[in-house]
Amino acid sequence: MSKYAIGVDYGTLSVRALMVDIHTGEEVATSIYEYPHGVMEERIPSGKKLAPGWALQDPQDYLEGLIITVRNVMAQQKAFPEEVVGIGVDFTSSTVLPVKADKTPLCHLEKFKDEPHAYVKLWKHHGAEKEALQIDKIAKERGEEWLSLYGGKVSSEWMIPKVLETLHHAPEVYREADRMMEALDWIIWEMTDEETRSACGAGYKAFYRHDTGYPSNDFFKALDPEMEHFIEEKMDAPIKSIGETAGYLCDSMAKQLGLLAGTPVGTGIIDAHASLPGCGIGEPGVMMIIVGTSSCHMMLSETEAGIPGVGGLVKDGIMPGYFGYEAGQCCVGDHFAWFVDNCVPESYAQEAREKGISVHQLLTEKLKDYKAGQSGLLALDWFNGVRSPLMDFNLNGLIMGMNLLTKPEEIYLSLIEATAYGTRMIIESFEDAGVPVNSIVLSGGIPVKNQMLVQVYADICKKDIRVSATTQASALGAAILGAAAASEQVTGYKNASEIAQKIGQVEDKVYTPNPDNTEVYDKLYEEYKTLHKYFGTGENDVMKRLNKIREERK
Amino acid sequence: MSKYAIGVDYGTLSVRALMVDIHTGEEVATSIYEYPHGVMEERIPSGKKLAPGWALQDPQDYLEGLIITVRNVMAQQKAFPEEVVGIGVDFTSSTVLPVKADKTPLCHLEKFKDEPHAYVKLWKHHGAEKEALQIDKIAKERGEEWLSLYGGKVSSEWMIPKVLETLHHAPEVYREADRMMEALDWIIWEMTDEETRSACGAGYKAFYRHDTGYPSNDFFKALDPEMEHFIEEKMDAPIKSIGETAGYLCDSMAKQLGLLAGTPVGTGIIDAHASLPGCGIGEPGVMMIIVGTSSCHMMLSETEAGIPGVGGLVKDGIMPGYFGYEAGQCCVGDHFAWFVDNCVPESYAQEAREKGISVHQLLTEKLKDYKAGQSGLLALDWFNGVRSPLMDFNLNGLIMGMNLLTKPEEIYLSLIEATAYGTRMIIESFEDAGVPVNSIVLSGGIPVKNQMLVQVYADICKKDIRVSATTQASALGAAILGAAAASEQVTGYKNASEIAQKIGQVEDKVYTPNPDNTEVYDKLYEEYKTLHKYFGTGENDVMKRLNKIREERK
Repeated sequence: MSKYAIGVDYGTLSVRALMVDIHTGEEVATSIYEYPHGVMEERIPSGKKLAPGWALQDPQDYLEGLIITVRNVMAQQKAFPEEVVGIGVDFTSSTVLPVKADKTPLCHLEKFKDEPHAYVKLWKHHGAEKEALQIDKIAKERGEEWLSLYGGKVSSEWMIPKVLETLHHAPEVYREADRMMEALDWIIWEMTDEETRSACGAGYKAFYRHDTGYPSNDFFKALDPEMEHFIEEKMDAPIKSIGETAGYLCDSMAKQLGLLAGTPVGTGIIDAHASLPGCGIGEPGVMMIIVGTSSCHMMLSETEAGIPGVGGLVKDGIMPGYFGYEAGQCCVGDHFAWFVDNCVPESYAQEAREKGISVHQLLTEKLKDYKAGQSGLLALDWFNGVRSPLMDFNLNGLIMGMNLLTKPEEIYLSLIEATAYGTRMIIESFEDAGVPVNSIVLSGGIPVKNQMLVQVYADICKKDIRVSATTQASALGAAILGAAAASEQVTGYKNASEIAQKIGQVEDKVYTPNPDNTEVYDKLYEEYKTLHKYFGTGENDVMKRLNKIREERK
Repeated sequence: MSKYAIGVDYGTLSVRALMVDIHTGEEVATSIYEYPHGVMEERIPSGKKLAPGWALQDPQDYLEGLIITVRNVMAQQKAFPEEVVGIGVDFTSSTVLPVKADKTPLCHLEKFKDEPHAYVKLWKHHGAEKEALQIDKIAKERGEEWLSLYGGKVSSEWMIPKVLETLHHAPEVYREADRMMEALDWIIWEMTDEETRSACGAGYKAFYRHDTGYPSNDFFKALDPEMEHFIEEKMDAPIKSIGETAGYLCDSMAKQLGLLAGTPVGTGIIDAHASLPGCGIGEPGVMMIIVGTSSCHMMLSETEAGIPGVGGLVKDGIMPGYFGYEAGQCCVGDHFAWFVDNCVPESYAQEAREKGISVHQLLTEKLKDYKAGQSGLLALDWFNGVRSPLMDFNLNGLIMGMNLLTKPEEIYLSLIEATAYGTRMIIESFEDAGVPVNSIVLSGGIPVKNQMLVQVYADICKKDIRVSATTQASALGAAILGAAAASEQVTGYKNASEIAQKIGQVEDKVYTPNPDNTEVYDKLYEEYKTLHKYFGTGENDVMKRLNKIREERK
């Protein structure tokens, strides 16, 4: 009898199920389901319009996607239910929904179908900017100690700002909600019929600390008197560590999925964080970077240290027994895509078509003999604001050094380099805080497709880099945590770290820094840091003033 | 009998003759001749290769073009030779050639046909960068007073650096040259058979001052002992004011042109400066700006004042009786063209084709409802270095404020705005020095085609602007100076100023500053100035360091 684990990976636009052989690591079946409602940015199904920056989802899509994709991988592999040792889930975060005590999402109640705040607020919902500022201010005034572990600044993408936004703008939704849930925890609750909270979601997105718990009632009261008992009323539930069993498939869900009731379900993990086990990282020293539209940097460490601008630090939040650190860059693939869509001339588009390659590939090809510094360009990768280390989303992009001979591929390279300088800055923050980074694993579609980018990262960060060997690292990580939810007797593995190191996938090839480039990049990085300080830390707040004028003139 | 003047306008790629009725101002005939040798940037006719930055011409093209175009306009209008009261010439500058005492260009001698330095060095020949630095250094060490009238910095595009370059790299050419000539003066010599020097060419490009003459022999000796007697040996000739008669057509040239011998020939003027009479400017208070690949700013004034970064200040150099000021921006149309060629996506190119308009027009159309500040962008127009006021060509471009919604037309607008901020900075330099600017006339292809740009200039500079009504303002200016070379008895005009004000052409429409935009642009201009200071005056020399690395890594 084979032994399989299933990982269910909830992304922004679709959910993917991946079935893995827990001993060989073979990815035997995969299935993708695109959410029928997608991301609602302009209106909800009732027709009601949304303000700019909103991003909602319908939780029914999650349930349907779960059932369809799991049934699909079972059918593809012709697997027997008893061959599935466990099931794991990863999810975007902080993706938040208000639900009733019977798990029903408020948006599915007739009375709230015209109420946007009753829907799922997706991670990239940006309606809670004011609330984030308010929370940040109050936390600082009160000297809340947890703030330093979140990089010293509250993001509007986190859970509590989104909840406070609901209270401010739709108090009846807040009041009617028996529970405020990460979608991550809600889907596990649907699967197991037991309400729990993942240490990962609570720790990275809801100010929960392993030693002191959630912030105090006084803190919540200071946000809004009505929130004083927010934790007891709407949040409190057992916190589960990553690598632990969250529960077991309940009868009705087992039936719908075509699996055995009682199949172990792993504690849910945030999608980005699932990449670490997916890429075989079970121990400290290796920085995992997911290079996507934005980038997420994660590390395991035995040390707990406040690092300026790091987005989160959670015990047992990524792998059991370690502190999991998280940092991030707002704009990576996003601005490469912006550039290709907006700034590449017709002749390049034609050339790419003639060669049968993408414009990204064409630009990369044109750069194959480039040496560091040859373009004379320098950019700031701030098109979407700055997460680590500044935690300031009121900044924007810059490109300098152009002359009349500057070519599109050179600007493209400068944008890649800028993201690598930003990463180096994050690495140095970690190392300065006593969390050494010995090597890097890159994951995500971009590094898999673009070897040039990986080499630039190696040259600028001066670290050996390996690339994830799977394009579905998060789903694989979820499957590993699914396997870890089963007992050692069943799987033969002691814990999640061991499974990750056995079946996590990373390519053999190592990209090593090219000394001819590192020396030049050291100089350019110094220039980047100077501009970073000048434009990012108050020496010249021109970007904020430009943004203000832009807003006023709309 | 009609009375015509002919203006001969020597541009970078072609020469144009324009025949004008001196009383109605009607442009009755025009003819263009493209130089067969064009601009030689890669090799000379012998096949010898040129280094990057070189730009040479063959003077034979000038002679042939003169004869063909003048004959052409005469034939078009079926004019009688006696109907031509005078002929005027404008020329690119500093465009320099070494010639024998009999006017023969050295490049036409068998012994020098393989010698690049024997050819005409076109204004944009950039082989004399080192010499410009050397001259600048020596002039400063010696405290040469004239330097302040040239903006305090020597440009490699001027005459003396080009001559010194010849002495350094081809001393035999220097020695064999009986005369070093502006092409401007050489062509007048060919026409009149009398050697003279235009106050305009000598004053703007060769350090000549009306009160103290050329720099001293000691100064030239300091440049190179062999140059000690440069002025007496190779330059000395009567200096003629603009508006004066340089001489009269000699027999042989009259025959070739089909005109009467003895026809008055006006003192030659630099092409840019010819626009002032061409646009009807004969008096102080109006700034003339030619917006082309680069921009040239000119003013008349009764006051003589050293203005930082102003390129030249010459008595009688533009109009008789006034000081003529000149400033400039290196990169205007050049970087709009760079942008359109390199940074506009295929979809825009397609849309422009479908609409049957140029990409420039499409971008302009998309901007028609834009308000100042709405894009959130700010740029530095330094893609080609900075002429006024920094006189520093070791700088480069910058664009900031981009986010993921930034559109190509917004970047295009930011480049236009940047050139307007640069112009405002020049205007403020003039006004700070006591040379008031009451209004502006724009000339050149760009303002004629792009009304949006003109309005942006009005809004940013906060001046009323009118646009030249002719696309051949320089040629018209040359014709006016041709008419001014004839006597009052013949023309009925007292002087060049009067003719300019009568038949110079400017549109009736006045672009007035839009108060809704000026207020925002005042703020953005302050930001521009802060960046100008930061990146341009040594606070952060990152651009120079980037250029240095770029050079090293080539």
